Amino acid sequence: MKESDKYIGVFDSGIGGLTVVKSIIDDIPGENIIYFGDTAHVPYGTRSKQQITEYVMNDVRFLNTFNIKAIVIACNTADSAAKTEVEKNYPDIPIFGVVEPASEKAAHITKNNRIGVIATNATIRSKAYEKAIKKYNPDAEVFSVACPLLVPLVEEGRFKTDDPVISEVVEEYLTPLKEKEIDTLVLGCTHYPLLHDVISAFIGDKTEIISSSAAAAEHLKTELAELDLLNSGEKKPGKYFVSDNAEFFEQKANMFMGDSLDVKVEQVNIE
Amino acid sequence: MKESDKYIGVFDSGIGGLTVVKSIIDDIPGENIIYFGDTAHVPYGTRSKQQITEYVMNDVRFLNTFNIKAIVIACNTADSAAKTEVEKNYPDIPIFGVVEPASEKAAHITKNNRIGVIATNATIRSKAYEKAIKKYNPDAEVFSVACPLLVPLVEEGRFKTDDPVISEVVEEYLTPLKEKEIDTLVLGCTHYPLLHDVISAFIGDKTEIISSSAAAAEHLKTELAELDLLNSGEKKPGKYFVSDNAEFFEQKANMFMGDSLDVKVEQVNIE
Repeated sequence: MKESDKYIGVFDSGIGGLTVVKSIIDDIPGENIIYFGDTAHVPYGTRSKQQITEYVMNDVRFLNTFNIKAIVIACNTADSAAKTEVEKNYPDIPIFGVVEPASEKAAHITKNNRIGVIATNATIRSKAYEKAIKKYNPDAEVFSVACPLLVPLVEEGRFKTDDPVISEVVEEYLTPLKEKEIDTLVLGCTHYPLLHDVISAFIGDKTEIISSSAAAAEHLKTELAELDLLNSGEKKPGKYFVSDNAEFFEQKANMFMGDSLDVKVEQVNIE
Repeated sequence: MKESDKYIGVFDSGIGGLTVVKSIIDDIPGENIIYFGDTAHVPYGTRSKQQITEYVMNDVRFLNTFNIKAIVIACNTADSAAKTEVEKNYPDIPIFGVVEPASEKAAHITKNNRIGVIATNATIRSKAYEKAIKKYNPDAEVFSVACPLLVPLVEEGRFKTDDPVISEVVEEYLTPLKEKEIDTLVLGCTHYPLLHDVISAFIGDKTEIISSSAAAAEHLKTELAELDLLNSGEKKPGKYFVSDNAEFFEQKANMFMGDSLDVKVEQVNIE
């Protein structure tokens, strides 16, 4: 098998990473994808760095049992907590995250150098976005807000613009950022692309909204092309695995991927 | 050591079980308590029965490494999924849950035989309350509603009566129960006692609200007395353990227990 024909391994704590998969399918539809959602341990966003790292290493070990040519950490929490550890342990596999691409894009796109970031508790606590954005744009001021209620609300389908609950919660979280007059807002959690319209309705169209999922897929496309790793062979059906509750995952998957989810989800015990 | 002087081992998937501990301290203040919160795997409420059972067996194994005289499953999800398995594996330790006491109380207290139950997805799916209530009152009609957003909202401190978000969400979940003209409502999750006032404000004072935490403590007091297991010896400080993020647990613990939490929380790896 040619290296480029191998799978891209994508993982997340649960279901949010499917927004990354959807963006990959949109941008580089010829790629073969294996997805793992660690639904036995979801959510990562409220856990300690040490615990997240332990779970992430298990996730990568599982993906690495397949023929993979690259790994995508499709979870901002996992990326910010454990990417270094993954890179250290898998020096021969290109490892891609979600924090770096969105940070680079935000750093370049901002005109007033005032960038907002919303994410889970763990991602905000890690300061991963702040560091990455300042690396690409040392003049940028980064304003971060942890939004712990957004993931549960999205998973319950509460992301419609006419839903008073999500509108109120989004307003509460984003008001401090609006007051800081940010011109760029990073959605630093793979669940948040579903909230694009609700967020846009509140923050206004003068603020550029950057999805970490879309940025990750764009970046992946560029990097795979540079590494000569774009698939030129057969397109196989995606493989989707979870560590618990495959049925629940399947029920919710459409919400995240529309019709792009092409196969059944299989439950595996990776411990 | 006399059997009655030993600890009562209490566990939950996370922090909600502290409302049971608080009720135990209120009802039988002389008892010695060891608490374990499985915060590395919280929440149990969205997981499969098989996965919950696996976590529960680890929890009990950990508590059983101490000198314990009884175990309290202070988590409706764990109780409804795995109590039978725990009893099978620990035939010599009295095992108490939260579902049975609240069910018995509701079954006896209802006048119109119309009882509402609110709980997590997993608890509702298990039909544990329905079965238990009908055992004590075969004429009762049980109306159940899964309320997946209540735990995350409570953990974010959203349980005040003047909070529009929790009021809206509670109204949505409870409207079908109000329409069924229930006269008794079981709070089938150990987080929900914090929502008592919000729920009461919506459902009205003609509906009796039964907390599974308070009912469990009352039942425990009666049973320990019958088994001659009430502590007559020294009262020791409580021991509190979690499997992840002790700091986060300590920060939130006061919300659940007020000043009753008397000691530091220790993190342990039980796997």
